[in-house]
Amino acid sequence: MPRVKFYPHGREAEVPEGTLLLRAALDAGVHINASCGGNGVCGKCRVLLQEGEVENGVSEKLSQQDREAGYRLACLSRVTQDLSVQVPVESELDPSVLNLQATPRKTAAIRQVSLEDFKVHGFFLPPIEKKNLQLPPPSSQDNCSDVTRVVDNLKFHHEEHNLEVDFSVIRKITDVIREQDFQTTATLGRPVHEESGKNTILNVQPGDTTDRNFALALDVGTTTVFGQVLDLNSGEVLAEYGDFNQQMTYGEDIINRIVYAEKGDGLQELCQAVLETINRILAKILNEAGVDKDEVSTITIAGNTTMTQLLLKLNPRYIRRSPYVPTCTLFPPIKARNIGIDLEEHALALVFPSISSYVGGDIVAGIMGSLMYQSEEVTLYVDIGTNAEVVIGNKDWMVCAACSAGPAFEGGGMKLGMRAKKGAIEDFSIDPFTFEPMVLTIGEAKPVGICGSGLITMVASLFETGVLDNQGKFNRELDTPRIREAEEGIWEYVLVWAEESGVDRDIVLQEPDIDNLIRAKGAIYSGCMTLLDEIGLTLSELDRVLLAGGFGSYIDLEKALTIGLLPEMDPERISFVGNGSLMGAKMSSLNNHIRQNVVEVTKKMTNFELSETTSYMDKYMASLFLPHTDLDKFPRVQSRLNERKKILSGT
Amino acid sequence: MPRVKFYPHGREAEVPEGTLLLRAALDAGVHINASCGGNGVCGKCRVLLQEGEVENGVSEKLSQQDREAGYRLACLSRVTQDLSVQVPVESELDPSVLNLQATPRKTAAIRQVSLEDFKVHGFFLPPIEKKNLQLPPPSSQDNCSDVTRVVDNLKFHHEEHNLEVDFSVIRKITDVIREQDFQTTATLGRPVHEESGKNTILNVQPGDTTDRNFALALDVGTTTVFGQVLDLNSGEVLAEYGDFNQQMTYGEDIINRIVYAEKGDGLQELCQAVLETINRILAKILNEAGVDKDEVSTITIAGNTTMTQLLLKLNPRYIRRSPYVPTCTLFPPIKARNIGIDLEEHALALVFPSISSYVGGDIVAGIMGSLMYQSEEVTLYVDIGTNAEVVIGNKDWMVCAACSAGPAFEGGGMKLGMRAKKGAIEDFSIDPFTFEPMVLTIGEAKPVGICGSGLITMVASLFETGVLDNQGKFNRELDTPRIREAEEGIWEYVLVWAEESGVDRDIVLQEPDIDNLIRAKGAIYSGCMTLLDEIGLTLSELDRVLLAGGFGSYIDLEKALTIGLLPEMDPERISFVGNGSLMGAKMSSLNNHIRQNVVEVTKKMTNFELSETTSYMDKYMASLFLPHTDLDKFPRVQSRLNERKKILSGT
Repeated sequence: MPRVKFYPHGREAEVPEGTLLLRAALDAGVHINASCGGNGVCGKCRVLLQEGEVENGVSEKLSQQDREAGYRLACLSRVTQDLSVQVPVESELDPSVLNLQATPRKTAAIRQVSLEDFKVHGFFLPPIEKKNLQLPPPSSQDNCSDVTRVVDNLKFHHEEHNLEVDFSVIRKITDVIREQDFQTTATLGRPVHEESGKNTILNVQPGDTTDRNFALALDVGTTTVFGQVLDLNSGEVLAEYGDFNQQMTYGEDIINRIVYAEKGDGLQELCQAVLETINRILAKILNEAGVDKDEVSTITIAGNTTMTQLLLKLNPRYIRRSPYVPTCTLFPPIKARNIGIDLEEHALALVFPSISSYVGGDIVAGIMGSLMYQSEEVTLYVDIGTNAEVVIGNKDWMVCAACSAGPAFEGGGMKLGMRAKKGAIEDFSIDPFTFEPMVLTIGEAKPVGICGSGLITMVASLFETGVLDNQGKFNRELDTPRIREAEEGIWEYVLVWAEESGVDRDIVLQEPDIDNLIRAKGAIYSGCMTLLDEIGLTLSELDRVLLAGGFGSYIDLEKALTIGLLPEMDPERISFVGNGSLMGAKMSSLNNHIRQNVVEVTKKMTNFELSETTSYMDKYMASLFLPHTDLDKFPRVQSRLNERKKILSGT
Repeated sequence: MPRVKFYPHGREAEVPEGTLLLRAALDAGVHINASCGGNGVCGKCRVLLQEGEVENGVSEKLSQQDREAGYRLACLSRVTQDLSVQVPVESELDPSVLNLQATPRKTAAIRQVSLEDFKVHGFFLPPIEKKNLQLPPPSSQDNCSDVTRVVDNLKFHHEEHNLEVDFSVIRKITDVIREQDFQTTATLGRPVHEESGKNTILNVQPGDTTDRNFALALDVGTTTVFGQVLDLNSGEVLAEYGDFNQQMTYGEDIINRIVYAEKGDGLQELCQAVLETINRILAKILNEAGVDKDEVSTITIAGNTTMTQLLLKLNPRYIRRSPYVPTCTLFPPIKARNIGIDLEEHALALVFPSISSYVGGDIVAGIMGSLMYQSEEVTLYVDIGTNAEVVIGNKDWMVCAACSAGPAFEGGGMKLGMRAKKGAIEDFSIDPFTFEPMVLTIGEAKPVGICGSGLITMVASLFETGVLDNQGKFNRELDTPRIREAEEGIWEYVLVWAEESGVDRDIVLQEPDIDNLIRAKGAIYSGCMTLLDEIGLTLSELDRVLLAGGFGSYIDLEKALTIGLLPEMDPERISFVGNGSLMGAKMSSLNNHIRQNVVEVTKKMTNFELSETTSYMDKYMASLFLPHTDLDKFPRVQSRLNERKKILSGT
């Protein structure tokens, strides 16, 4: 990967080819004033190339002379080779101070079990297997039924015992086995919930089709639905697609959906809406993978408790009412068709069990798919989505809780918050002297709003530079037009002036937005700490943290620790598993033990209702600060702040 | 019951009140000339009351004077009290000869397991049980899912373990348990095929509904479909109804149905036809019993292999082609709705397994329902319907075969044959000197044809009186206009002259009709004997015979033995179980062991294809006589014939 060195800072970053130079600077921890989000409008992000050349990087904001001298706009330049870049800074700043401008970006290592590892360790045990059978044709001496013929052949030639036959197979077997002269392929489903259960003949096909064996994995999120087509012979994902959950038109969050479901045909409508999304996604990915519906034997589904109940058309009314009772947590295998999923008659829908109304199958899927449930290591699993769920444990025990974090991490509840899509400010730094910002948007478009990961970085950076105090209030004394009182008592920071924004208005971060974030991060932090307390563990006994959620991959870990989103620890112990729900659905499609073990795992998982846990409220109140009322709990943040102070007082 | 004595014969019969005097005479073995079937037209059946009085018994055929003298028409008289009746006979006949006119009617004892016996012996163990649960309402300390709440209550308060939950229950449980303040009734289904299997929660209802627990039993016959509503608390049949199988319009027998099923949408049409019959019957009997569909948890279905496959929409093509392969013999429990039966979502259809293409679930049901499968006694079970099936065995072993008897026993294949309905001659005797007949019809209507039981009695009586020889040919020498050559080489006996018949033509029995019957009874007899031979048993080792089939109840046993329909034995060892298929469906609804044991029973049942069994054809050829070519095999018939000869030669 090309390496970019920034001077006078002396910092560097390795970035993939094609990365925006502005992004490389942020990754290296180099601040460059840039407020148009990366589309060359503001012209502020001029840098001087000393070695190497970039792609693009010029606009009418640069004079011919500047171009020839080697100036480029960092927000338009793509890195394709090693570079040395000079960033114009005020002359009096020495490098030690320069380095206060930003901290190098640090995201969590992505940790997913690789297919190769999976196979090497003997975990590749798909619960669906195909067997090619050469049946002896019936004769007067051997005129048993067609079903018996197939079952006996599996018994005596393939060591397959304890078989039962799906009725859809009985319906077609007579024609199928005769179509290619008694050569046939039987699809066997392993017992779903118990090792001792039955093996089911799920399908029969004419001839030898053993090379065509597929399954589907499905994550049904409140916002988004993801599907995958899996090849059960290779373990590969053949196609994948995600789309907004069509239920979004009935309300953005779970509570609104439940309220809708309680009225008239609401439940039926919501069920239909998500089914339409699912069936559209399945049609698309099956088509893309070149897989016929008849070749799919299972669809493994993970979703939070409410999404699961709406999909299965189970009245969700009592999920939102104390004492928060779901209809069902452990689901039997269901014919996919019976719940409206457009697959063949034999296909089974396997729905991940949930733990409680607010710790759902998506979390259980993550626990299973990350193999946390098999690990000796004491792990903190945190899934940050519309809400946040926390699990602590290892192969012997587990506790979990849902934290009412609210939608702050998905850009909800903010004046100018938005989901992580084009134009959302997703990264940020601030010059600690001029208070000028550097913003990066998704899609390098003009900024239109702020998404969750951008919000975390902003709040952390503003706090580190003293623009925000530890209660999330702006320092009213700073000499910059960017900090101002918007209306009576509500202060804000202007990230982007109207003329550089994509919405013709100033894009601002207001104190209530920050309060929101503080409450959200406080809920997660205090949730983690309450669980630790309840089981009598200290932070140092946590071996590692797994972060899940679509959002997690963009988080700047140091920034997240700075605001106190997670208990402070060595960032090396934190890794990111991505969409845990989809991962679990996929992994359980590839390994039957996961399906079988899930019942045991859910049984040993103890759910805490935080609102019912006495110590929670105290912990929550104490965490409504940046990073916390007790800075001793965040020694790394404390030492970083002290170091800054020392350097700054030395200038 | 009133007792009727007939003079000068000195014979008597006990008959239910309201029995026709003509029927009482036949039962006693007293011949009275009567050829109009019992509606007073011919006026021949005059008898003189000596003691007692009858109801009706007069018509314009009797003069006022005769009436006052005590003459009555036997075919119009109803027995309501003890009677002495003088039958006019030719004066020269002495009582010993009189007794040759007819033999007392002897039907098999009806042997069905009584509900009381069933309960006393601990066999009343319905596979569906209801449990009333008073659930603790959810609280913060106890906010498990609704399903867990019900399952735990069953576990801890009702000792119910190994539970699984039907998806239809999951769909409704949240509303149901709250409808009557957490008082609810759970319907539990016991494991269907194995004792070790799961108990399924099939339904939940609000409040206490334990007194409402119902099941359905269904016999799907080629000709007729019977349904019963069973109360699983009392074991009583609450309603029962039978109707013609609507498939009859597509062909009367199995072969024609299969041929139809092979064309275009034939299978679909036939499936639809029988479903319409079934759903009509179910609606009728449920309504009659005052039972709601939601209260029915199972429907147990028995039918022959073809009827079962057509109902389940399984291609029956290979049933009728050598080597006669059915699609499936052992069926998993199926949702009744999935096969088109109009019940609620939770209701299970339990289909009796079959043995082979021609020994079906109706026979297995009979074996199970008669408890033959539990008996030490070596039993011959014969089901005579459109075809005939034979099973020999006891609790340790069983062999079975289907006999191609053809439809003779249901009145098929005869010039004037008909099913057992109004106007069918069902009983008969003949005067051995005048060759005048006595006929009794179903419904006491003018005769219109001959049904199966009538045919047996006719052929036996004609043979015993020497009107027929042992090859089934009429004695051409007898001096009576009733025996005549109808057309070149085809002789016949006129049962009813046109003017007394209900069809304005002579009702005749022709030699080809008799040939048909001989082939049919020969097939059954030789089937029984072949099975005995194959297992190395002799006739004397048979402990008893169970006769099944709608037809069986009307058979005059002595007559059936006279023609050689069954191996000869003491009639006391023969009993009649009625519709074995329906009985089995009912019994298995009342006793879960039957459902569980059926798999073992079918496994130990060895099927013989008679056409593939070398010795069968010889045995068959030898049995194409009345009663058999080897009279030594029928010592009782032989001695009766000898006795007749002696008496007759003594006159």
